[in-house]
Amino acid sequence: MKESTLQSWEVLKNQELFVAAPWIKLSVQQVRLPNGRLVDDYYQITLPEYTMIFAQTTNGKVIVEWLYKHGVGRVSLVLPAGLIENGEDPLAAAQRELLEETGYTSADWRLLGRFVVHGNYGCGRAHLFTARNAQRVAEPDSGDLEDTEIVLMKLEDIVEAVSNGEVALLSSIAAIALATNPSFVPWCVSDAQHP
Amino acid sequence: MKESTLQSWEVLKNQELFVAAPWIKLSVQQVRLPNGRLVDDYYQITLPEYTMIFAQTTNGKVIVEWLYKHGVGRVSLVLPAGLIENGEDPLAAAQRELLEETGYTSADWRLLGRFVVHGNYGCGRAHLFTARNAQRVAEPDSGDLEDTEIVLMKLEDIVEAVSNGEVALLSSIAAIALATNPSFVPWCVSDAQHP
Repeated sequence: MKESTLQSWEVLKNQELFVAAPWIKLSVQQVRLPNGRLVDDYYQITLPEYTMIFAQTTNGKVIVEWLYKHGVGRVSLVLPAGLIENGEDPLAAAQRELLEETGYTSADWRLLGRFVVHGNYGCGRAHLFTARNAQRVAEPDSGDLEDTEIVLMKLEDIVEAVSNGEVALLSSIAAIALATNPSFVPWCVSDAQHP
Repeated sequence: MKESTLQSWEVLKNQELFVAAPWIKLSVQQVRLPNGRLVDDYYQITLPEYTMIFAQTTNGKVIVEWLYKHGVGRVSLVLPAGLIENGEDPLAAAQRELLEETGYTSADWRLLGRFVVHGNYGCGRAHLFTARNAQRVAEPDSGDLEDTEIVLMKLEDIVEAVSNGEVALLSSIAAIALATNPSFVPWCVSDAQHP
C-alpha cells in the first residue's frame, strides 16, 4: 500500500437513520478531517456485497443477460451477478450465482478485483470474477424477482452493445472492460482465438 | 435498444423515507412485476450524478490522485471526479472538475459512457470521460473535503497498482479499464507510443 502523509477521517459519532436488514442501512456520522475540521452530517450507506461474473463458454462466447433492473429503470445487458449471503465466501457465492442464474459451471475461476461501489457513501462492494471454459450443466433457476433472457455473445457484439448504450450498469462495464483488457488480464479468451 | 418481451416494473406507490438535499434521497416503493406479483418495499436511493475523467498528458501519463475517500475507508488511487451541479452539462462538469482538482485542461474530450451505479437501488449515475493531451495551466484548488496528492503515472504502473489492490473504487477501475481497452477505445494513448 501507498506510503503517504494522507490520513483517514476519524468517526466521532455514528447514528443509524434507517435500517431494513439485510438490504439497507443509512447512517449519519460526525467526522473529523485531518486538518481538524468537523463535519456533522456525512452519510454512509451500507448495502450487501455482491459478486459479478464475466463467464466465457469453451468456445469463447460471453454469458450475458438481458433483464430489467429497477435501479436502471429499463431493460439492459448485464453480467450474471448476485448478493453474497451472510458468511458466504465471495468465490463460492459467484459459483452459486452463475449456476443458479445461467445453469453454467466452470473449473477455472479468477478474481478480477473487489471494488467499493461509491466513493463518498460506500454502497457495498462488488467482487468481480472471471470464469473460463464454462459448461452448461443445468436449467437456470435463479429465484430472482427479474425475468431474464440469457444470451451467449461474441466480444465484438458486446462492444457494439456498449457503444449503443445497452450496457447501463457500472459494475457490468467494469467487469467487461477489465476482463477483456490485455493490459490487465492477459489470459482472456478472445473471439480471435475461438472463431 | 433491445427488442424484447422483457417488461419494466410498474411503480404503484412511492414514499420518501429520508431526504438530505442535494445529497441523498431514500424512498420505498410498491412495485408490480410483469408476472403481477406485488412487492411492497423495494428501496430506491437517489444520489447526485457525477463525472470521472481518465486524463492523459501530452506524453501519455495518466493524471491520478491518491486520496482518502470515506466510502472506501482508506487511502486509494482514484481518477479525478466530481459531482455535476444542478443543471450543469456533464462534459462541462468534467472539464471544470479536472481543472479545479488537478490544474489541467484539455481540448480533446470524449465520453466513455454513462452508467448507473447500483442495479437494484440506483445510487446515481457516473459519466465517464477521457481527456487527451492535457496540459497544466493552473494550481489545483478543488475546495473538496479531501486532501489529495496528484501524481502522473504510466499505464504499467497503474496496472501494478490495480494488481496491488490500490484502485479500490468501482468507478475508477471502470474508467481505467475502458479507456485503456483497445476493443473499446482504439484512440487511447499508450505508454508504448510515448516512452
